[in-house]
Amino acid sequence: MPAISIIQPAAFDRTVFFVSDGTGITAEAFGHAVLTQFNLRFKQVRLPFIDDLDKAHYAAAKINETFEQEGMPPIIFSTLVKEDLSQIIRNTKCMYMDLIQTFVGPLEQELGIKSTHTIGRGQDIANSEAYKNRIEAINFSLIHDDGQSHKNLSSADVILVGVSRSGKTPTSLFLAMQYGIKSANYPLIPEDFERGKMPSALLKYKSKIFGLSITPERLCVIRNERLPGSKYAALENCRFEVNEAEAMMKREGIHWLSSTTKSIEEISSTILQELKLEKRVY
Amino acid sequence: MPAISIIQPAAFDRTVFFVSDGTGITAEAFGHAVLTQFNLRFKQVRLPFIDDLDKAHYAAAKINETFEQEGMPPIIFSTLVKEDLSQIIRNTKCMYMDLIQTFVGPLEQELGIKSTHTIGRGQDIANSEAYKNRIEAINFSLIHDDGQSHKNLSSADVILVGVSRSGKTPTSLFLAMQYGIKSANYPLIPEDFERGKMPSALLKYKSKIFGLSITPERLCVIRNERLPGSKYAALENCRFEVNEAEAMMKREGIHWLSSTTKSIEEISSTILQELKLEKRVY
Repeated sequence: MPAISIIQPAAFDRTVFFVSDGTGITAEAFGHAVLTQFNLRFKQVRLPFIDDLDKAHYAAAKINETFEQEGMPPIIFSTLVKEDLSQIIRNTKCMYMDLIQTFVGPLEQELGIKSTHTIGRGQDIANSEAYKNRIEAINFSLIHDDGQSHKNLSSADVILVGVSRSGKTPTSLFLAMQYGIKSANYPLIPEDFERGKMPSALLKYKSKIFGLSITPERLCVIRNERLPGSKYAALENCRFEVNEAEAMMKREGIHWLSSTTKSIEEISSTILQELKLEKRVY
Repeated sequence: MPAISIIQPAAFDRTVFFVSDGTGITAEAFGHAVLTQFNLRFKQVRLPFIDDLDKAHYAAAKINETFEQEGMPPIIFSTLVKEDLSQIIRNTKCMYMDLIQTFVGPLEQELGIKSTHTIGRGQDIANSEAYKNRIEAINFSLIHDDGQSHKNLSSADVILVGVSRSGKTPTSLFLAMQYGIKSANYPLIPEDFERGKMPSALLKYKSKIFGLSITPERLCVIRNERLPGSKYAALENCRFEVNEAEAMMKREGIHWLSSTTKSIEEISSTILQELKLEKRVY
């Protein structure tokens, strides 16, 4: 039977379940989008891989148990595709928020065709073209991390630049994982500032370059975690490097963003938009 | 004005827009969950950061333009939180699928409180605790990649083992990014097979270990991309290593999965469930 994975605040107002016949990632995203509109604390329980009757009954038992214990119907966010399984969950003492049934029915009307009710049509099934692209993009990002490789820069969709510890690696990995985008990343270092120019290997790829910056204070904290008390981490040095890097990016006409105030999702989404990536024809 | 990011098949049946006041990641996940139930080809257009009236009007113009050009209402998957912006999009020639309005209203009733209608309450706002945990987890995974570091294994939430190129790195990065899970990963190498035992540094962490395997044929293809014609990549050798690794994992009583047939999302979700990770109290 499925093991339950739980996020439980010390005190909470209501229990929510994310129920899926797959990984539960979409159910969770769906649930969070709705729940963050409420200033309440939620105990969150994941129930992925609910793909047969036995598991559906097990999930239903857990939901009813919660109702018995807490005296309030838990909120269920479901992406279950099979109607028989969905019905079992719907029939519990819960408030059922069904992503699929709510929208698929009306869409059948609009599109003039029936839906397939097929489990496992998730975006990235192992071995699909899209999935292989993502794995390839992750590998590309890792090989081209931190200026390690000058090879194949022409294959990169984007080249991230910024001072050391400005968030290039997490951003390039997120771009790879979420969008299958191949990114190389390059540190801007004191030698570049002395020369007053971007690293030469990058000059012919300028239209692909996106810069990341960070506040000197935040950079100082991060660098001190890595090399405490070093000159590298000193606030003066951080200010110097950040100012030089930002001035250089402005001079070179490169788009850039601060990773201090934007999450890697926001930065990645912005990069896609600004560099007009992914106008793919397939 | 927002730049548009498009995925366009050579021929398509309908255009869909993912409209969001944030990154659009949830709108896209929501849309895909519904659209994959239909055997049609969709042109997909992202419209993130629609967070003021000007941008909403711009988005509406794009949508109406599409209707004019194609003669069919595009399908809109929206996670817009502000009613005034949502209304502008709703009033276009489209089929409007609204994640927020559909579910937030009923939830207000059930929970007995009003929703906040606040933009930017996404799960991982830069500088939130959860966000910092994810970045820390990504860094942990990178430092502990491929057996590079024995330090801090006690801080790892999970330790992935498997032959070289069985998918450990992408999986550990996904665990970090999606769930903030810290994972170390270790290759199982011929020396371990000769000894017949797991690497000694790992023995006291057995309950945290999860194994990845892969079919020898797939491994051979992947290894040949890296080191073509090598003994490392030869099918015989791949068969040997995979058989030894699987036998060892069974002997040691370690959970494991094949990364050939499961996506990193499925593997990660399974790891969370099987190792009962993330029963966090905060």
